[in-house]
Amino acid sequence: MESFTFLSPTKFVFGVDTENAVGELVASYGGSKVLIVYGGGSVVRSGLLDRVQKSLTASKISFFSISGVQPNPLDTKVYEGIQLCRKEGIDFLLPVGGGSVIDTAKAIGMGACYDGDFWDFYSGKAVAEKTLPLGTVLTIAAAGSEGSESSVITKSEGMYKRGCSNEIIRPLFSVLNPALTATLPKEQTAAGAADIFAHIMERYFTNTKEVEVTDRLCEGLMLTLLHEVPRALVDPENVDVRANIMWAGMVAHNNIVGVGREQDWASHGLEHELSAKYSVAHGAGLAIIFPAWMKYTYEHDVMRFAQWANRVFGIAMDFANPKATALAGIHALENYFASCGLPVRMSEIGGKAEDIDYLVEHLQLNGGTMGSFVKLDANACAEIYRISL
Amino acid sequence: MESFTFLSPTKFVFGVDTENAVGELVASYGGSKVLIVYGGGSVVRSGLLDRVQKSLTASKISFFSISGVQPNPLDTKVYEGIQLCRKEGIDFLLPVGGGSVIDTAKAIGMGACYDGDFWDFYSGKAVAEKTLPLGTVLTIAAAGSEGSESSVITKSEGMYKRGCSNEIIRPLFSVLNPALTATLPKEQTAAGAADIFAHIMERYFTNTKEVEVTDRLCEGLMLTLLHEVPRALVDPENVDVRANIMWAGMVAHNNIVGVGREQDWASHGLEHELSAKYSVAHGAGLAIIFPAWMKYTYEHDVMRFAQWANRVFGIAMDFANPKATALAGIHALENYFASCGLPVRMSEIGGKAEDIDYLVEHLQLNGGTMGSFVKLDANACAEIYRISL
Repeated sequence: MESFTFLSPTKFVFGVDTENAVGELVASYGGSKVLIVYGGGSVVRSGLLDRVQKSLTASKISFFSISGVQPNPLDTKVYEGIQLCRKEGIDFLLPVGGGSVIDTAKAIGMGACYDGDFWDFYSGKAVAEKTLPLGTVLTIAAAGSEGSESSVITKSEGMYKRGCSNEIIRPLFSVLNPALTATLPKEQTAAGAADIFAHIMERYFTNTKEVEVTDRLCEGLMLTLLHEVPRALVDPENVDVRANIMWAGMVAHNNIVGVGREQDWASHGLEHELSAKYSVAHGAGLAIIFPAWMKYTYEHDVMRFAQWANRVFGIAMDFANPKATALAGIHALENYFASCGLPVRMSEIGGKAEDIDYLVEHLQLNGGTMGSFVKLDANACAEIYRISL
Repeated sequence: MESFTFLSPTKFVFGVDTENAVGELVASYGGSKVLIVYGGGSVVRSGLLDRVQKSLTASKISFFSISGVQPNPLDTKVYEGIQLCRKEGIDFLLPVGGGSVIDTAKAIGMGACYDGDFWDFYSGKAVAEKTLPLGTVLTIAAAGSEGSESSVITKSEGMYKRGCSNEIIRPLFSVLNPALTATLPKEQTAAGAADIFAHIMERYFTNTKEVEVTDRLCEGLMLTLLHEVPRALVDPENVDVRANIMWAGMVAHNNIVGVGREQDWASHGLEHELSAKYSVAHGAGLAIIFPAWMKYTYEHDVMRFAQWANRVFGIAMDFANPKATALAGIHALENYFASCGLPVRMSEIGGKAEDIDYLVEHLQLNGGTMGSFVKLDANACAEIYRISL
């Protein structure tokens, strides 16, 4: 294990109807003029927005709104939000939605407190030192942004999708009502679960030795998803099932299971270009990329893959041939994603061999590589895209 | 899963030599006049106290000390600390030690901000609304007090051992240097690990249904201990092993793996009387009580015990006779504790059948019972003590 600092200061208010406490929560953190950030119609149709607004009003909190945040959220909406914050003197941000909405609000918060272009924080040009206070109302278990220090935004000019990590953007509170996720379409439930699974695996495949405690916690989360996600797909309104997935999604990404170990994140980098180019859900893109990444990298540490295959998928260890165990695990993951109705090949979302150059060109390669389990240069990335076809 | 609120605002600074950052940490939380709380000679002999003091001095922080905190810490030391805080105008508490030292400091903090007797918070007469800010330097992986909202103190008059839970006593920071635990005697390592194991099991044995995610996280922690503790006992100076145990100890008790489920805590209540009467380490007492508690309660939910036996101890499920699986798990736990050199019978620590009435008399029975998995009345408690003989 490596040295680390871990601080997750978010208050999680978990349970059915907890969105009705949002007014009191905002008030308890000193918010008086709120910007509600949300996506499309479902938040309106379901009555959630109405309940949130009623709760704010009951706590004498005034509010403005910005809507229309899309999956793979764009910088344009961030600029719109920053302007509104400045014009109206917003003192608290309240994203009501999933990762895209929360990530947009995080970007707005940093941008509103900064004289320059907020994109500086995503391009790596600057590090934000201040942000607006922010609480969330989560509507999908997926991105983990409700408990994380990260945000991902796409620059519309050139469609560059970039992440920003900064401890100051962890939410002050997150309202997690699993019943809100009971009406999600199957493909969103599945893509969200794949995103959670990927957050765990980005941490799991590491070169750091002696990480039994975080290995075991990661495995526990993956086992949870193997058990619960198929149940959610056949019995979508089972709030108990939704609750297990929702808490797993938070724990998977606030980093309590990832501390003290090198993490990879190449698959996320590779996926970002898929969702930017093909407008596929981030989680669906990960279901395509992760098995391909594994096929490319597993020989780097066969025993780690064999451990994962054995402990998570219950594949019997082949002591004479650990590679066979590792490969069986990768196939089990692929089958699991496919059984959830997710794409597992780029060709399923319209990807073609001739797109690969474009994808690789757009990748964010730091010092010419990405990832840390295996450092991938442009050629390696191209090969992984090829494997995924 | 049940509804819950979870907030763990402690900053964990983990790694070798991290105690040298304690001055900066205290300063960052506004502390200027610190009370260092510690136990006995080992903190002095190892040079830890000296390093902590140097770090404080380097940050221009003045300090006072109170030492001599014993295992199963007494109220007398708390009163001494409260007086010192008031006399010297202490504005920050810095326990350097294990659970007893941290719990004492937590009690001092609440008591120093209260006009009445601090014991009110442990007897259930009052709830603390204010406390002094507190950070910890941990020297043993065991109690989990470095990340928890609880504290246990023994009233010397009558030797009543009582706990207090209050969110305001969560530490602001905890410095976790696993190398500090490398010199612990074997029996302390083992007792600490049993305490951690017990914290997990108090959460695991629940009547709440549909708790897969916290089940799996709990199992991951137990599997970690099964793997790492025997290694720590044969290779005590392996800091990697110590690190895994140390992080497991925190995660086991800050409640991230216990949210949304009814918890039991009868074994802790039963144990408190053992350590109060026989001056045995809390963890050693738990190694005696927990298997006995299980033998008494397992028929209440055989399948939960079978699941635990199978997933944690790898005992093959006996589908024709799940009770056999459950019992095999209980015996595996007992063997595990014994293999760590811990007592597993009351008679090993001098307990006798004729003491049972005294022990039961001292128990804290709320409304006549304790625990929640199975509600135990005085007779049931006596029976568990009898089983443990």
